[in-house]
Amino acid sequence: MINRNAPVGVFDSGVGGLTVVREIMRQIPNEKIIYFGDTARVPYGSKSKETVTRYSKQIIRFLQTQNVKAIVVACNTASAYALDEIEREVDIPMIGVVKPGAKVAAEATANGKIGVIGTEGTIGSSIYSRYIKEIKQDADVVGKACPLFVPLVEEGLLQDPVTDEIAKRYLTELIDIGIDTLILGCTHYPLIRSTIGRVMGVKVTLVNPAYETARELKELLRTENMLNEEEIRLGDNRYRFYVSDGAEKFMHFANSIIKYGILSAKIIPIEDY
Amino acid sequence: MINRNAPVGVFDSGVGGLTVVREIMRQIPNEKIIYFGDTARVPYGSKSKETVTRYSKQIIRFLQTQNVKAIVVACNTASAYALDEIEREVDIPMIGVVKPGAKVAAEATANGKIGVIGTEGTIGSSIYSRYIKEIKQDADVVGKACPLFVPLVEEGLLQDPVTDEIAKRYLTELIDIGIDTLILGCTHYPLIRSTIGRVMGVKVTLVNPAYETARELKELLRTENMLNEEEIRLGDNRYRFYVSDGAEKFMHFANSIIKYGILSAKIIPIEDY
Repeated sequence: MINRNAPVGVFDSGVGGLTVVREIMRQIPNEKIIYFGDTARVPYGSKSKETVTRYSKQIIRFLQTQNVKAIVVACNTASAYALDEIEREVDIPMIGVVKPGAKVAAEATANGKIGVIGTEGTIGSSIYSRYIKEIKQDADVVGKACPLFVPLVEEGLLQDPVTDEIAKRYLTELIDIGIDTLILGCTHYPLIRSTIGRVMGVKVTLVNPAYETARELKELLRTENMLNEEEIRLGDNRYRFYVSDGAEKFMHFANSIIKYGILSAKIIPIEDY
Repeated sequence: MINRNAPVGVFDSGVGGLTVVREIMRQIPNEKIIYFGDTARVPYGSKSKETVTRYSKQIIRFLQTQNVKAIVVACNTASAYALDEIEREVDIPMIGVVKPGAKVAAEATANGKIGVIGTEGTIGSSIYSRYIKEIKQDADVVGKACPLFVPLVEEGLLQDPVTDEIAKRYLTELIDIGIDTLILGCTHYPLIRSTIGRVMGVKVTLVNPAYETARELKELLRTENMLNEEEIRLGDNRYRFYVSDGAEKFMHFANSIIKYGILSAKIIPIEDY
Protein backbone atom coordinates (compact mmCIF):
# COMPACT_ATOMS: atom_id res chain seq x y z
CA MET A 1 0.00 0.00 0.00
CA ILE A 2 1.29 3.42 -0.96
CA ASN A 3 1.29 5.95 1.83
CA ARG A 4 0.59 9.18 -0.01
CA ASN A 5 1.19 11.10 3.16
CA ALA A 6 4.79 9.85 3.39
CA PRO A 7 7.66 12.22 2.62
CA VAL A 8 9.73 12.41 -0.54
CA GLY A 9 13.41 11.59 0.03
CA VAL A 10 15.98 13.86 -1.63
CA PHE A 11 19.74 13.46 -1.45
CA ASP A 12 22.89 15.14 -2.64
CA SER A 13 26.62 15.10 -1.88
CA GLY A 14 26.17 18.27 0.16
CA VAL A 15 24.22 21.49 -0.12
CA GLY A 16 23.79 21.74 -3.89
CA GLY A 17 20.68 19.53 -3.93
CA LEU A 18 18.88 22.23 -1.99
CA THR A 19 18.30 23.99 -5.31
CA VAL A 20 16.18 20.95 -6.20
CA VAL A 21 14.43 21.05 -2.83
CA ARG A 22 13.65 24.71 -3.43
CA GLU A 23 11.95 23.85 -6.72
CA ILE A 24 9.97 20.99 -5.15
CA MET A 25 8.81 23.34 -2.38
CA ARG A 26 7.64 25.83 -5.02
CA GLN A 27 5.99 23.41 -7.40
CA ILE A 28 4.44 20.87 -4.98
CA PRO A 29 4.22 22.74 -1.68
CA ASN A 30 2.01 20.10 -0.12
CA GLU A 31 4.74 17.44 -0.12
CA LYS A 32 6.85 16.57 2.90
CA ILE A 33 10.57 16.28 2.24
CA ILE A 34 13.41 14.43 3.90
CA TYR A 35 16.78 15.71 2.72
CA PHE A 36 20.15 14.08 3.18
CA GLY A 37 23.41 15.92 2.35
CA ASP A 38 26.62 13.86 2.52
CA THR A 39 28.69 16.69 3.95
CA ALA A 40 31.28 14.33 5.49
CA ARG A 41 32.30 13.05 2.05
CA VAL A 42 31.46 15.99 -0.22
CA PRO A 43 32.29 16.53 -3.08
CA TYR A 44 31.31 13.61 -5.33
CA GLY A 45 32.22 15.30 -8.62
CA SER A 46 35.90 14.36 -8.57
CA LYS A 47 35.47 10.83 -7.21
CA SER A 48 35.11 7.49 -8.99
CA LYS A 49 31.95 5.71 -10.12
CA GLU A 50 32.55 2.88 -7.61
CA THR A 51 32.92 5.24 -4.68
CA VAL A 52 29.94 7.44 -5.62
CA THR A 53 27.77 4.33 -6.09
CA ARG A 54 28.79 2.91 -2.70
CA TYR A 55 28.01 6.20 -0.99
CA SER A 56 24.67 6.51 -2.81
CA LYS A 57 23.62 3.03 -1.74
CA GLN A 58 24.25 3.85 1.92
CA ILE A 59 22.12 6.97 1.58
CA ILE A 60 19.30 5.06 -0.12
CA ARG A 61 19.29 2.61 2.79
CA PHE A 62 19.06 5.48 5.27
CA LEU A 63 16.20 7.14 3.35
CA GLN A 64 14.30 3.85 3.30
CA THR A 65 14.44 3.71 7.09
CA GLN A 66 12.54 7.02 6.96
CA ASN A 67 9.73 5.39 4.93
CA VAL A 68 9.93 7.77 1.99
CA LYS A 69 7.45 7.18 -0.84
CA ALA A 70 9.86 8.23 -3.61
CA ILE A 71 13.50 9.25 -3.95
CA VAL A 72 15.03 12.13 -5.88
CA VAL A 73 18.75 11.85 -6.62
CA ALA A 74 19.42 15.59 -6.51
CA CYS A 75 23.07 15.29 -7.47
CA ASN A 76 24.19 15.17 -11.07
CA THR A 77 27.26 13.05 -10.36
CA ALA A 78 25.28 10.46 -8.39
CA SER A 79 22.56 10.47 -11.08
CA ALA A 80 25.23 9.97 -13.74
CA TYR A 81 27.17 7.24 -11.99
CA ALA A 82 24.82 5.42 -9.66
CA LEU A 83 21.17 5.78 -10.66
CA ASP A 84 20.96 2.70 -12.91
CA GLU A 85 22.45 0.49 -10.23
CA ILE A 86 20.62 1.80 -7.17
CA GLU A 87 17.25 1.85 -8.93
CA ARG A 88 17.35 -1.95 -8.94
CA GLU A 89 17.66 -2.05 -5.16
CA VAL A 90 14.42 -0.28 -4.28
CA ASP A 91 10.78 -0.79 -5.12
CA ILE A 92 9.71 2.84 -4.82
CA PRO A 93 9.94 5.36 -7.67
CA MET A 94 13.31 7.04 -8.05
CA ILE A 95 14.27 9.91 -10.33
CA GLY A 96 17.57 11.63 -11.01
CA VAL A 97 18.27 15.12 -12.28
CA VAL A 98 19.92 14.09 -15.54
CA LYS A 99 17.01 12.66 -17.54
CA PRO A 100 14.62 15.59 -16.97
CA GLY A 101 17.34 18.07 -17.92
CA ALA A 102 18.33 16.09 -21.02
CA LYS A 103 14.71 15.85 -22.17
CA VAL A 104 14.04 19.57 -21.98
CA ALA A 105 17.35 20.41 -23.68
CA ALA A 106 16.59 18.04 -26.55
CA GLU A 107 13.23 19.76 -27.01
CA ALA A 108 14.57 23.29 -26.61
CA THR A 109 17.43 23.27 -29.12
CA ALA A 110 16.83 24.70 -32.59
CA ASN A 111 20.24 24.07 -34.17
CA GLY A 112 20.85 20.73 -32.44
CA LYS A 113 23.97 21.98 -30.65
CA ILE A 114 23.70 21.47 -26.90
CA GLY A 115 26.32 22.23 -24.27
CA VAL A 116 26.53 20.54 -20.87
CA ILE A 117 28.55 21.86 -17.95
CA GLY A 118 29.12 19.86 -14.76
CA THR A 119 31.66 18.11 -12.57
CA GLU A 120 34.44 15.94 -13.96
CA GLY A 121 32.39 12.86 -13.07
CA THR A 122 29.20 13.99 -14.79
CA ILE A 123 30.99 15.18 -17.93
CA GLY A 124 33.30 12.16 -18.05
CA SER A 125 30.28 9.81 -17.93
CA SER A 126 28.76 11.39 -21.10
CA ILE A 127 25.37 10.56 -19.62
CA TYR A 128 23.62 13.77 -20.75
CA SER A 129 24.74 13.05 -24.30
CA ARG A 130 23.38 9.51 -24.08
CA TYR A 131 19.94 10.59 -22.85
CA ILE A 132 19.72 13.51 -25.29
CA LYS A 133 20.50 11.20 -28.23
CA GLU A 134 17.76 8.80 -27.19
CA ILE A 135 15.35 11.64 -27.94
CA LYS A 136 17.22 13.54 -30.64
CA GLN A 137 19.57 11.22 -32.43
CA ASP A 138 21.37 13.84 -34.49
CA ALA A 139 22.05 16.19 -31.59
CA ASP A 140 25.59 17.49 -31.19
CA VAL A 141 26.33 17.43 -27.46
CA VAL A 142 29.50 19.00 -26.06
CA GLY A 143 30.43 18.61 -22.40
CA LYS A 144 32.74 20.83 -20.37
CA ALA A 145 33.82 20.13 -16.79
CA CYS A 146 33.95 23.26 -14.63
CA PRO A 147 35.63 22.16 -11.36
CA LEU A 148 36.09 25.67 -9.95
CA PHE A 149 32.42 26.66 -10.08
CA VAL A 150 31.47 24.72 -6.92
CA PRO A 151 34.24 26.19 -4.72
CA LEU A 152 33.50 29.68 -6.08
CA VAL A 153 29.81 29.29 -5.19
CA GLU A 154 30.64 27.89 -1.76
CA GLU A 155 32.99 30.85 -1.16
CA GLY A 156 30.01 33.11 -1.93
CA LEU A 157 31.49 34.70 -5.07
CA LEU A 158 28.14 34.60 -6.90
CA GLN A 159 28.61 38.05 -8.46
CA ASP A 160 32.32 38.61 -8.80
CA PRO A 161 34.90 39.47 -11.46
CA VAL A 162 36.83 36.29 -10.62
CA THR A 163 33.76 34.14 -11.27
CA ASP A 164 33.20 36.08 -14.51
CA GLU A 165 36.77 35.39 -15.60
CA ILE A 166 36.62 31.67 -14.79
CA ALA A 167 33.22 31.40 -16.51
CA LYS A 168 34.64 33.01 -19.65
CA ARG A 169 37.51 30.51 -19.74
CA TYR A 170 35.27 27.50 -19.27
CA LEU A 171 32.52 28.63 -21.63
CA THR A 172 34.46 30.13 -24.55
CA GLU A 173 34.73 26.82 -26.40
CA LEU A 174 30.98 26.27 -26.07
CA ILE A 175 30.31 29.75 -27.47
CA ASP A 176 32.74 29.10 -30.35
CA ILE A 177 30.92 25.88 -31.25
CA GLY A 178 27.67 27.85 -31.47
CA ILE A 179 25.50 25.94 -28.98
CA ASP A 180 22.00 27.37 -28.56
CA THR A 181 21.16 25.43 -25.38
CA LEU A 182 23.22 24.92 -22.22
CA ILE A 183 22.42 22.46 -19.44
CA LEU A 184 23.49 23.56 -15.94
CA GLY A 185 24.52 20.01 -15.06
CA CYS A 186 25.48 20.54 -11.43
CA THR A 187 23.12 21.58 -8.67
CA HIS A 188 25.37 24.47 -7.61
CA TYR A 189 25.29 26.14 -11.00
CA PRO A 190 21.80 27.70 -10.84
CA LEU A 191 23.26 29.89 -8.09
CA ILE A 192 25.57 31.54 -10.66
CA ARG A 193 22.98 31.41 -13.42
CA SER A 194 23.17 35.16 -14.05
CA THR A 195 26.96 35.03 -14.55
CA ILE A 196 26.68 32.06 -16.90
CA GLY A 197 23.83 33.73 -18.79
CA ARG A 198 25.78 36.96 -19.21
CA VAL A 199 28.81 35.11 -20.61
CA MET A 200 26.75 32.90 -22.95
CA GLY A 201 24.55 35.74 -24.21
CA VAL A 202 20.78 36.07 -24.35
CA LYS A 203 20.35 33.79 -27.37
CA VAL A 204 21.45 30.68 -25.48
CA THR A 205 18.73 28.86 -23.52
CA LEU A 206 19.86 27.80 -20.07
CA VAL A 207 18.31 24.56 -18.84
CA ASN A 208 18.07 24.11 -15.07
CA PRO A 209 17.63 20.39 -14.28
CA ALA A 210 16.52 21.28 -10.73
CA TYR A 211 13.40 22.93 -12.11
CA GLU A 212 12.72 20.15 -14.60
CA THR A 213 13.22 17.48 -11.95
CA ALA A 214 10.63 19.03 -9.65
CA ARG A 215 8.21 19.13 -12.60
CA GLU A 216 8.88 15.49 -13.38
CA LEU A 217 8.44 14.53 -9.73
CA LYS A 218 5.06 16.26 -9.65
CA GLU A 219 4.02 14.48 -12.83
CA LEU A 220 5.22 11.13 -11.51
CA LEU A 221 3.38 11.49 -8.20
CA ARG A 222 0.21 12.50 -10.02
CA THR A 223 0.40 9.62 -12.51
CA GLU A 224 1.02 7.09 -9.76
CA ASN A 225 -1.72 8.60 -7.63
CA MET A 226 0.80 9.37 -4.93
CA LEU A 227 0.38 13.13 -4.39
CA ASN A 228 -0.13 13.99 -0.75
CA GLU A 229 -3.74 14.98 -0.20
CA GLU A 230 -3.68 15.51 3.53
CA GLU A 231 -3.55 19.05 4.72
CA ILE A 232 -0.18 20.05 6.15
CA ARG A 233 -0.73 21.36 9.66
CA LEU A 234 1.36 23.68 11.73
CA GLY A 235 3.71 21.57 13.81
CA ASP A 236 3.86 18.81 11.21
CA ASN A 237 7.48 18.02 10.71
CA ARG A 238 7.17 19.01 7.11
CA TYR A 239 10.79 19.39 6.03
CA ARG A 240 13.53 17.42 7.73
CA PHE A 241 17.25 17.79 7.04
CA TYR A 242 19.99 15.24 7.71
CA VAL A 243 23.71 15.49 7.03
CA SER A 244 26.80 13.39 7.72
CA ASP A 245 28.83 16.31 9.13
CA GLY A 246 28.73 19.98 10.07
CA ALA A 247 25.04 20.53 10.86
CA GLU A 248 25.48 24.19 11.83
CA LYS A 249 27.39 25.07 8.69
CA PHE A 250 24.84 23.22 6.58
CA MET A 251 21.95 25.16 8.10
CA HIS A 252 23.71 28.44 7.49
CA PHE A 253 24.15 27.68 3.79
CA ALA A 254 20.70 26.11 3.50
CA ASN A 255 19.00 29.20 4.85
CA SER A 256 20.74 31.28 2.22
CA ILE A 257 19.19 29.13 -0.53
CA ILE A 258 15.77 28.29 0.88
CA LYS A 259 13.40 30.91 2.18
CA TYR A 260 11.64 28.46 4.50
CA GLY A 261 13.58 28.84 7.78
CA ILE A 262 15.54 25.68 8.48
CA LEU A 263 15.84 25.37 12.24
CA SER A 264 17.72 22.11 12.61
CA ALA A 265 19.72 19.48 10.79
CA LYS A 266 20.60 16.15 12.34
CA ILE A 267 23.86 14.26 11.88
CA ILE A 268 23.59 10.63 10.70
CA PRO A 269 26.50 8.14 10.80
CA ILE A 270 26.00 7.33 7.13
CA GLU A 271 28.87 4.83 6.94
CA ASP A 272 26.85 2.50 9.17
CA TYR A 273 24.03 2.11 6.61
CA MET B 1 62.29 -4.09 19.27
CA ILE B 2 62.48 -1.26 16.78
CA ASN B 3 62.82 -2.32 13.19
CA ARG B 4 64.95 0.47 11.73
CA ASN B 5 64.46 -0.96 8.30
CA ALA B 6 60.67 -0.47 8.49
CA PRO B 7 59.02 2.27 6.45
CA VAL B 8 57.77 5.64 7.69
CA GLY B 9 53.99 6.07 7.32
CA VAL B 10 52.75 9.38 5.92
CA PHE B 11 49.13 10.36 5.44
CA ASP B 12 47.03 13.20 4.14
CA SER B 13 43.46 13.87 3.05
CA GLY B 14 44.57 13.56 -0.58
CA VAL B 15 47.53 14.65 -2.65
CA GLY B 16 48.73 17.67 -0.65
CA GLY B 17 50.82 15.58 1.74
CA LEU B 18 53.05 14.67 -1.18
CA THR B 19 54.82 17.99 -0.65
CA VAL B 20 55.89 16.53 2.71
CA VAL B 21 56.88 13.24 1.08
CA ARG B 22 58.99 15.21 -1.40
CA GLU B 23 60.89 16.86 1.47
CA ILE B 24 61.40 13.54 3.27
CA MET B 25 62.76 12.02 0.06
CA ARG B 26 65.20 14.93 -0.26
CA GLN B 27 66.34 15.11 3.34
CA ILE B 28 66.42 11.44 4.34
CA PRO B 29 66.63 9.57 1.04
CA ASN B 30 67.46 6.29 2.71
CA GLU B 31 64.03 5.96 4.35
CA LYS B 32 61.22 3.84 2.96
CA ILE B 33 57.83 5.53 2.84
CA ILE B 34 54.24 4.29 2.86
CA TYR B 35 51.83 7.04 1.86
CA PHE B 36 48.07 7.04 2.27
CA GLY B 37 45.86 9.72 0.63
CA ASP B 38 42.18 9.71 1.61
CA THR B 39 40.98 10.63 -1.88
CA ALA B 40 37.50 9.15 -1.33
CA ARG B 41 36.76 11.67 1.41
CA VAL B 42 38.99 14.61 0.48
CA PRO B 43 38.97 17.48 1.49
CA TYR B 44 39.27 17.56 5.29
CA GLY B 45 39.65 21.34 5.58
CA SER B 46 35.94 22.12 5.61
CA LYS B 47 34.87 19.18 7.79
CA SER B 48 34.37 18.92 11.54
CA LYS B 49 36.86 17.90 14.20
CA GLU B 50 34.87 14.74 14.98
CA THR B 51 34.80 13.60 11.36
CA VAL B 52 38.47 14.39 10.68
CA THR B 53 39.46 12.54 13.87
CA ARG B 54 37.38 9.48 12.93
CA TYR B 55 38.94 9.37 9.46
CA SER B 56 42.45 9.84 10.86
CA LYS B 57 42.00 6.95 13.29
CA GLN B 58 41.01 4.63 10.46
CA ILE B 59 44.13 5.63 8.53
CA ILE B 60 46.37 5.11 11.56
CA ARG B 61 44.95 1.61 11.92
CA PHE B 62 45.70 0.90 8.27
CA LEU B 63 49.27 2.23 8.55
CA GLN B 64 49.87 0.05 11.60
CA THR B 65 48.98 -3.04 9.56
CA GLN B 66 51.90 -2.00 7.33
CA ASN B 67 54.30 -2.12 10.30
CA VAL B 68 55.51 1.45 9.99
CA LYS B 69 58.11 2.59 12.51
CA ALA B 70 56.81 6.18 12.74
CA ILE B 71 53.87 8.20 11.42
CA VAL B 72 53.83 11.67 9.87
CA VAL B 73 50.46 13.41 9.80
CA ALA B 74 51.13 15.35 6.60
CA CYS B 75 47.86 17.23 6.68
CA ASN B 76 47.47 20.48 8.58
CA THR B 77 43.78 19.96 9.30
CA ALA B 78 44.32 16.43 10.67
CA SER B 79 47.33 17.67 12.68
CA ALA B 80 45.23 20.52 14.06
CA TYR B 81 42.16 18.47 14.92
CA ALA B 82 43.24 14.91 15.54
CA LEU B 83 46.91 14.62 16.51
CA ASP B 84 46.46 14.91 20.28
CA GLU B 85 43.80 12.22 20.30
CA ILE B 86 45.36 9.73 17.88
CA GLU B 87 48.80 10.01 19.47
CA ARG B 88 47.38 8.25 22.51
CA GLU B 89 46.35 5.26 20.42
CA VAL B 90 49.77 4.26 19.14
CA ASP B 91 53.10 3.43 20.71
CA ILE B 92 55.27 4.53 17.80
CA PRO B 93 56.51 8.11 17.31
CA MET B 94 54.07 10.39 15.53
CA ILE B 95 54.61 13.93 14.29
CA GLY B 96 52.31 16.44 12.66
CA VAL B 97 53.11 19.37 10.41
CA VAL B 98 51.85 22.09 12.76
CA LYS B 99 54.40 22.02 15.58
CA PRO B 100 57.52 22.12 13.36
CA GLY B 101 56.04 25.02 11.35
CA ALA B 102 55.05 26.91 14.49
CA LYS B 103 58.50 26.48 16.02
CA VAL B 104 60.37 27.86 13.03
CA ALA B 105 57.96 30.78 12.67
CA ALA B 106 58.37 31.70 16.34
CA GLU B 107 62.14 31.73 15.85
CA ALA B 108 62.06 33.57 12.51
CA THR B 109 59.91 36.57 13.40
CA ALA B 110 61.62 39.82 14.29
CA ASN B 111 58.58 42.00 15.03
CA GLY B 112 56.52 39.22 16.64
CA LYS B 113 53.75 39.48 14.05
CA ILE B 114 53.09 36.10 12.41
CA GLY B 115 50.45 35.26 9.82
CA VAL B 116 49.03 31.78 9.26
CA ILE B 117 47.08 30.74 6.18
CA GLY B 118 45.25 27.41 5.92
CA THR B 119 41.89 25.68 5.63
CA GLU B 120 38.85 26.75 7.63
CA GLY B 121 39.51 23.84 10.01
CA THR B 122 43.15 24.66 10.65
CA ILE B 123 42.53 28.38 11.11
CA GLY B 124 39.37 27.84 13.19
CA SER B 125 41.31 25.58 15.57
CA SER B 126 43.86 28.37 16.35
CA ILE B 127 46.40 25.61 16.83
CA TYR B 128 49.34 27.44 15.22
CA SER B 129 48.74 30.35 17.56
CA ARG B 130 48.70 28.01 20.56
CA TYR B 131 52.01 26.34 19.66
CA ILE B 132 53.69 29.63 18.72
CA LYS B 133 52.73 31.18 22.06
CA GLU B 134 54.20 28.25 23.95
CA ILE B 135 57.54 29.36 22.53
CA LYS B 136 57.02 33.10 22.16
CA GLN B 137 54.37 34.25 24.59
CA ASP B 138 54.05 37.80 23.28
CA ALA B 139 53.67 36.80 19.61
CA ASP B 140 50.81 38.35 17.69
CA VAL B 141 49.39 35.55 15.48
CA VAL B 142 46.77 36.28 12.83
CA GLY B 143 45.07 33.45 10.94
CA LYS B 144 43.34 33.67 7.58
CA ALA B 145 41.41 30.82 5.94
CA CYS B 146 41.98 30.60 2.17
CA PRO B 147 39.44 28.00 0.94
CA LEU B 148 39.95 28.71 -2.78
CA PHE B 149 43.70 28.01 -2.82
CA VAL B 150 43.29 24.21 -2.82
CA PRO B 151 40.83 24.07 -5.76
CA LEU B 152 42.99 26.59 -7.68
CA VAL B 153 46.07 24.40 -7.17
CA GLU B 154 44.16 21.25 -8.11
CA GLU B 155 42.92 22.99 -11.27
CA GLY B 156 46.58 23.66 -12.11
CA LEU B 157 46.37 27.47 -11.92
CA LEU B 158 49.75 27.73 -10.20
CA GLN B 159 50.83 30.79 -12.21
CA ASP B 160 47.68 32.63 -13.16
CA PRO B 161 46.11 36.09 -12.85
CA VAL B 162 43.06 34.55 -11.12
CA THR B 163 45.27 33.00 -8.44
CA ASP B 164 47.07 36.35 -8.09
CA GLU B 165 43.75 38.15 -7.61
CA ILE B 166 42.47 35.66 -5.03
CA ALA B 167 45.81 35.74 -3.20
CA LYS B 168 45.66 39.54 -3.02
CA ARG B 169 42.18 39.40 -1.49
CA TYR B 170 43.10 36.82 1.11
CA LEU B 171 46.47 38.31 2.03
CA THR B 172 45.78 42.06 2.08
CA GLU B 173 44.72 42.08 5.72
CA LEU B 174 47.91 40.25 6.70
CA ILE B 175 50.00 42.81 4.81
CA ASP B 176 48.10 45.67 6.49
CA ILE B 177 48.82 44.21 9.92
CA GLY B 178 52.52 44.20 9.07
CA ILE B 179 53.40 40.55 9.64
CA ASP B 180 57.02 39.66 8.90
CA THR B 181 56.52 35.87 8.85
CA LEU B 182 53.85 33.80 7.10
CA ILE B 183 53.19 30.09 7.69
CA LEU B 184 51.93 28.16 4.64
CA GLY B 185 49.59 26.13 6.84
CA CYS B 186 48.20 23.77 4.20
CA THR B 187 50.21 21.23 2.26
CA HIS B 188 48.94 22.52 -1.09
CA TYR B 189 50.24 26.04 -0.54
CA PRO B 190 53.94 25.44 -1.22
CA LEU B 191 52.83 24.77 -4.81
CA ILE B 192 51.78 28.44 -5.12
CA ARG B 193 54.64 29.72 -3.01
CA SER B 194 55.87 32.07 -5.71
CA THR B 195 52.45 33.74 -6.04
CA ILE B 196 52.13 34.11 -2.28
CA GLY B 197 55.69 35.43 -2.04
CA ARG B 198 55.07 38.00 -4.77
CA VAL B 199 51.91 39.29 -3.08
CA MET B 200 53.49 39.41 0.40
CA GLY B 201 56.75 41.02 -0.78
CA VAL B 202 60.36 39.99 -0.23
CA LYS B 203 60.54 41.19 3.37
CA VAL B 204 58.10 38.57 4.61
CA THR B 205 59.59 35.17 5.50
CA LEU B 206 57.52 32.26 4.22
CA VAL B 207 57.59 29.18 6.44
CA ASN B 208 56.93 25.84 4.75
CA PRO B 209 55.90 23.28 7.40
CA ALA B 210 56.56 20.45 4.91
CA TYR B 211 60.26 21.28 4.93
CA GLU B 212 60.39 21.73 8.71
CA THR B 213 58.50 18.49 9.28
CA ALA B 214 60.98 16.46 7.24
CA ARG B 215 63.78 18.05 9.26
CA GLU B 216 62.06 17.18 12.53
CA LEU B 217 61.44 13.63 11.34
CA LYS B 218 65.12 13.22 10.55
CA GLU B 219 66.06 14.58 13.97
CA LEU B 220 63.54 12.32 15.69
CA LEU B 221 64.74 9.19 13.91
CA ARG B 222 68.35 10.03 14.72
CA THR B 223 67.63 10.74 18.39
CA GLU B 224 65.65 7.54 18.77
CA ASN B 225 68.30 5.59 16.89
CA MET B 226 65.73 4.64 14.27
CA LEU B 227 67.34 5.85 11.02
CA ASN B 228 67.40 3.14 8.39
CA GLU B 229 70.96 1.90 7.99
CA GLU B 230 70.38 -0.84 5.47
CA GLU B 231 71.26 -0.08 1.93
CA ILE B 232 68.25 0.42 -0.35
CA ARG B 233 68.53 -1.97 -3.24
CA LEU B 234 66.99 -1.81 -6.66
CA GLY B 235 63.72 -3.73 -6.57
CA ASP B 236 63.14 -2.87 -2.91
CA ASN B 237 59.64 -1.55 -2.67
CA ARG B 238 60.97 1.73 -1.43
CA TYR B 239 57.97 4.03 -1.82
CA ARG B 240 54.45 2.67 -1.71
CA PHE B 241 51.30 4.69 -2.32
CA TYR B 242 47.78 3.90 -1.16
CA VAL B 243 44.56 5.85 -1.69
CA SER B 244 40.88 5.37 -0.96
CA ASP B 245 39.75 6.32 -4.48
CA GLY B 246 40.94 7.26 -7.97
CA ALA B 247 44.37 5.60 -8.14
CA GLU B 248 45.04 6.72 -11.72
CA LYS B 249 44.19 10.34 -11.05
CA PHE B 250 46.31 10.29 -7.90
CA MET B 251 49.32 8.98 -9.76
CA HIS B 252 48.97 11.65 -12.40
CA PHE B 253 49.01 14.43 -9.81
CA ALA B 254 51.68 12.71 -7.71
CA ASN B 255 54.05 12.51 -10.65
CA SER B 256 53.69 16.24 -11.20
CA ILE B 257 54.88 16.89 -7.62
CA ILE B 258 57.46 14.16 -7.09
CA LYS B 259 60.30 13.54 -9.49
CA TYR B 260 60.62 9.88 -8.49
CA GLY B 261 58.33 8.11 -11.00
CA ILE B 262 55.30 6.71 -9.17
CA LEU B 263 54.22 3.65 -11.07
CA SER B 264 51.30 2.42 -9.01
CA ALA B 265 48.89 3.32 -6.24
CA LYS B 266 46.62 0.78 -4.59
CA ILE B 267 43.07 1.38 -3.42
CA ILE B 268 42.28 0.53 0.21
CA PRO B 269 38.74 0.26 1.62
CA ILE B 270 39.62 2.66 4.43
CA GLU B 271 36.14 2.62 6.00
CA ASP B 272 36.77 -0.99 7.02
CA TYR B 273 39.70 -0.08 9.29
